[in-house]
Amino acid sequence: MDFSSKLLESAVNEMSQLPGIGKRTALRLVLHLLKQPKEQTEFLTNALQKMREDIKFCESCHNISDVAICEICANPNRNHHIICVVEDIRDVMAIENTGQFRGIYHVLGGKISPIDGIGPSQLNISSLVEKVKLGNVQEIIFALSSTMEGDTTNFYIYKQIKDTGIITSSIARGISVGDELEYADEVTLGRSIINRIPFENSIKNN
Amino acid sequence: MDFSSKLLESAVNEMSQLPGIGKRTALRLVLHLLKQPKEQTEFLTNALQKMREDIKFCESCHNISDVAICEICANPNRNHHIICVVEDIRDVMAIENTGQFRGIYHVLGGKISPIDGIGPSQLNISSLVEKVKLGNVQEIIFALSSTMEGDTTNFYIYKQIKDTGIITSSIARGISVGDELEYADEVTLGRSIINRIPFENSIKNN
Ligand SMILES: [Zn+2]
Ligand SMILES: [Zn+2]
Repeated sequence: MDFSSKLLESAVNEMSQLPGIGKRTALRLVLHLLKQPKEQTEFLTNALQKMREDIKFCESCHNISDVAICEICANPNRNHHIICVVEDIRDVMAIENTGQFRGIYHVLGGKISPIDGIGPSQLNISSLVEKVKLGNVQEIIFALSSTMEGDTTNFYIYKQIKDTGIITSSIARGISVGDELEYADEVTLGRSIINRIPFENSIKNN
Repeated sequence: MDFSSKLLESAVNEMSQLPGIGKRTALRLVLHLLKQPKEQTEFLTNALQKMREDIKFCESCHNISDVAICEICANPNRNHHIICVVEDIRDVMAIENTGQFRGIYHVLGGKISPIDGIGPSQLNISSLVEKVKLGNVQEIIFALSSTMEGDTTNFYIYKQIKDTGIITSSIARGISVGDELEYADEVTLGRSIINRIPFENSIKNN
């Protein structure tokens, strides 16, 4: 692409760093901002900067939060003995939407994926294992997407906690294998939490 | 959507103001920025802010430019007597890419579209008519997309300049009717400029 303006070129280049945004889409978005009042660009850039600078992660569950302990972890009406293990905060939002889960979460921040260079140490796994070993947890529900990486991650965690005798379960697969959790409809996802099965059974079925 | 953080919510809301970016896509993009080093967000927001604040439009052709008169208008090797009329700067980029046009441009900034509330006065039409009436122009090439709005705009301009006896042409429609110019391949688009036809003929064929 040949730009008539360095300012435009640099805006398009930065915008196209975002995943799924090619140069053409980036150009379309940037030209849109040029047609709108300056305030729209200001609001957008301020919101992004403020978020990136000031956002916190819950010290207990690693959910995104504006305070040290997130709303869910701080809620005394939730069952703190049941922990649902998810990949990222979109999954927390999806499960909260079902209204079927009253326990708390643990956000791993990703899945083990050797191809992408993501190992267990880059994920929030040790803090989960610690929590379990402290003895205050009754059940761990694995709610990662049922991809190879998801299964690997589940199993890695399972091996480290199975000796504690804790109950481990896996959400029921009403959702088709390989589907992303966040795109499942609320009813299916809610049902898959209610019908969760012992994690050992989910291994046998594979 | 239920967010666990106001900072996140506001970033997603602003991002989803962009055309074609829904709430889910916005959330995906914003979470991506959170996983990247802070610098990436800084680079993006700085580039957007700087562009929105400092960008200029060429005083002659209304192309986006970092200086008062754009590279194309300032180039003495271009034929300043042939003006190609386009909708926006993406079309300038597309035609420049073909290497088939050595004249200059006039960027209207849109098309006449009563449904969207866009009338002739919101477009850079009067400056084009003025230029033609000053007598230094030999030919006007209409290169808008062949949609109803494009045809309306062409015809509106044509009526105002036809008494000057200037040559008016319309790029050849090798491109299918209704297609956006910017998505045409370079060869087709280049040929359609070479094979342009008198504008009167393009009306008759409709
Ligand atoms: Zn929390
Ligand atoms: Zn110019």
